[in-house]
Amino acid sequence: MPHPLFTPEVRLLLGERNDAGLREFCESLHPATVAEALDDEFTPEQVWEAISHTDIRGQASIFEYLPPARQVEMIEKARPQVGQLLGKMSHDDRVDLVRRLPPNVHEALLRLVDEADRRDIATLGQYGADTVGAMMTTDYAWLPGTLTAAEAIDQLRQQAPDRETIYYVYVLDEASRKPDGTLAPRRLLGVVSLRDLILAPRHALIRDLMESEVETLRYDEDREAVTKLFARYDFIAVPVVDDRFGLLGIVTHDDVLDVVQAEATEDLQRQAGVGPIEGNYLDAAFGVVWLSRVKWLAVLFGMQMFTINVMAHYEGQLEGGAGRPGGGGGLAFLIVFIPLCLSVGGNAGSQASTLVTRALALEQIRTRDWLQVCRRELLMAAALAATLGILSVARTYWLTPAEVLAKVPPGGFWSLVWVVTFAVMGICLTGAIIGAMLPLGIKAVGWDPALMSGPFIATLSDVLGIVIYFSIITVFF
Amino acid sequence: MPHPLFTPEVRLLLGERNDAGLREFCESLHPATVAEALDDEFTPEQVWEAISHTDIRGQASIFEYLPPARQVEMIEKARPQVGQLLGKMSHDDRVDLVRRLPPNVHEALLRLVDEADRRDIATLGQYGADTVGAMMTTDYAWLPGTLTAAEAIDQLRQQAPDRETIYYVYVLDEASRKPDGTLAPRRLLGVVSLRDLILAPRHALIRDLMESEVETLRYDEDREAVTKLFARYDFIAVPVVDDRFGLLGIVTHDDVLDVVQAEATEDLQRQAGVGPIEGNYLDAAFGVVWLSRVKWLAVLFGMQMFTINVMAHYEGQLEGGAGRPGGGGGLAFLIVFIPLCLSVGGNAGSQASTLVTRALALEQIRTRDWLQVCRRELLMAAALAATLGILSVARTYWLTPAEVLAKVPPGGFWSLVWVVTFAVMGICLTGAIIGAMLPLGIKAVGWDPALMSGPFIATLSDVLGIVIYFSIITVFF
Repeated sequence: MPHPLFTPEVRLLLGERNDAGLREFCESLHPATVAEALDDEFTPEQVWEAISHTDIRGQASIFEYLPPARQVEMIEKARPQVGQLLGKMSHDDRVDLVRRLPPNVHEALLRLVDEADRRDIATLGQYGADTVGAMMTTDYAWLPGTLTAAEAIDQLRQQAPDRETIYYVYVLDEASRKPDGTLAPRRLLGVVSLRDLILAPRHALIRDLMESEVETLRYDEDREAVTKLFARYDFIAVPVVDDRFGLLGIVTHDDVLDVVQAEATEDLQRQAGVGPIEGNYLDAAFGVVWLSRVKWLAVLFGMQMFTINVMAHYEGQLEGGAGRPGGGGGLAFLIVFIPLCLSVGGNAGSQASTLVTRALALEQIRTRDWLQVCRRELLMAAALAATLGILSVARTYWLTPAEVLAKVPPGGFWSLVWVVTFAVMGICLTGAIIGAMLPLGIKAVGWDPALMSGPFIATLSDVLGIVIYFSIITVFF
Repeated sequence: MPHPLFTPEVRLLLGERNDAGLREFCESLHPATVAEALDDEFTPEQVWEAISHTDIRGQASIFEYLPPARQVEMIEKARPQVGQLLGKMSHDDRVDLVRRLPPNVHEALLRLVDEADRRDIATLGQYGADTVGAMMTTDYAWLPGTLTAAEAIDQLRQQAPDRETIYYVYVLDEASRKPDGTLAPRRLLGVVSLRDLILAPRHALIRDLMESEVETLRYDEDREAVTKLFARYDFIAVPVVDDRFGLLGIVTHDDVLDVVQAEATEDLQRQAGVGPIEGNYLDAAFGVVWLSRVKWLAVLFGMQMFTINVMAHYEGQLEGGAGRPGGGGGLAFLIVFIPLCLSVGGNAGSQASTLVTRALALEQIRTRDWLQVCRRELLMAAALAATLGILSVARTYWLTPAEVLAKVPPGGFWSLVWVVTFAVMGICLTGAIIGAMLPLGIKAVGWDPALMSGPFIATLSDVLGIVIYFSIITVFF
């Protein structure tokens, strides 16, 4: 942990009941640092005691940085305080918290917050997980377009304490009603940054200062849309709108970083054949992790069964051709090279599928580049196969174990070298090509290229690899 | 591409030489959108013509969003203009640009910018790639602590146009000199946000308003430190200091997102056994990609060679015990199950190593949690092995091909079922355990756990898997 150094200090301050010291601790450090110092060596009651030395807004900021499981624990110990705290938390963070509570605690808690906050929590809670709506917060700063720059700054002074950010101010239309008579979200007319407000002449009107070509997100888009927009533009926040361009909330830059990390984790897990696991690795339920792993292992196990059929088929053929001089097992000495040859295909395939899948995810490859990708990957596969081929000749020539050599039929040594080498090359080529092409193909039919994980490609390449290996044997022996 | 819709419009405007339209296009849209519309269907000359309709500051903003290769192309066409442009670009972006230029263009260009900018480019250019220093920009806003809030806001009005951000204002000490007589960077005393300045009474002094416990980064830290700091705190920017707490620059939130994406790409590539490839997949040189792939393929190929020795060793033993009734190949029918059994270990191992490596990277697992991780992964490995064991009994009982069954010695069918099942279970267990433990062990000795990639674990598990498989055969046959 980055700040365990404050933990002993807090322990001391709590032991001494040093109120001034605890207040200083809560107020002089960044709330994230305070939250980290209050780690699981303290009971929830001790954490409540420590943070009670600052005001309710300060408590809310520290509380927001505590780990999710910890927040739930703390609420179960002291519900009445939490009612107040929720009123001061960021609107997005508190919805996340309320979602995680057991239903009975959830209900009891909502009775303690005021009507407006309760409605806000309910509204934000309704958006599907992984949508833009679920990431947004409703505590944005907004103004009508008819104010002057100076008036706007005055207004922002009033709004600032309760807003997630005041660096972007949204300019909204008059209120209007939906056909059913309820109030519709006000329409977004533009956005003006605090920087522009400060630079503008005092009497300039907001509606003349504002940027009216606003990049927005729809509440029902996938959260990936957020990361793409923030990666393209250097925004601090982006407004989220409904079908009528009514402003529903904003997504701020700090939440985007979390999503990018979460998406990367998901990609890494998919790549290794793990159905993505939400949240922290150690906090995830055993059964959830088990299921997300075993389902892929079972699918791959099922696919891999074809290797048995293929091997059984070729083995029969090999034995038919056996009975030559040179030892009991006929061509059985060739069996020992199978794991080596197959692994080359799996490795080259995982590399290719990872590179192509990631490039697709980052939009480095676009539809019109496909031909270029194919050409490049074919060349690359050939170059890799050639290099491994050279290694394989050297390896088989110098390093084949004596037990194996003893069984090689007279004059068959060079056949052995070429069988292994051509198999390594052929399987490397096949692995790299299917690894590169399958994600592209899957993308073309509109599925998620990440389905073509490393283990999946390796399994496919094993089945093909056995066919290749035995076909080459048939040619040489 | 997200905004190709403006491309036809630009083509039209350029064709008509519609100056008013081009000006409107450059000024009303976000510079990133303008840059995207000016894609590679236009010549560098046409792009210069299009953007010349806005002022030099606007040109610089659009230019910053063009793809790197494009920027270099454009500079080669019109150096004099670029001299001016560089003066208005973000200090971090222009260093990145200058670094990418061929040495002769680089030198010629630096002669066109003024002395201060040239020095700034040289200073920023000296930091090692992948360090905090290489990410930072020097166009931050700063003030002495003796101003009042109102004076500070007035000062910011002057500074705003040339600053990357004015939302955080750094409070600096008096200038001082180094022992060698040159000016040292001014020491960082604190930071105050524009939000706090706006909220503060007009006559409050900055030094009383500022936060003096500032989280900073050192210029020579790895860029990963930046992502960790931004993930923990919701900052817009973080100051970068030298050993004496002298302010060298700031890192802003928008650059962090790029680094998080780049780090995730690196992790994904490492996980698949690709020595990380810098930058865009299609732009990377063929030789670089080849090397980063072939070096791992060669290492894995070398490791995998042990499977040959192990198999040769056991095969000799098996043949020694052959010659029973039931067919020519002795126990050769057991060979067909090898790829299936081995693949289970590779798959379970990649899953475990990916989960543990990622949890370590995100600091979800800490040193003191090791015992917990080990216990959990052992249990998980057992649970996965048990499930696959059940599948394997079913599979071997019902789905073993007739060619194989024909060769099983009389009364040996259940031995076959148990050999395959225990091998699948044992190899799954071994794969999952080494996949989970090796990254932890590697981390403990201070190396990068990402070295334990999926293919690496799979190869290791293949060698062990063959030992397990043949040992079980020896017990049952």
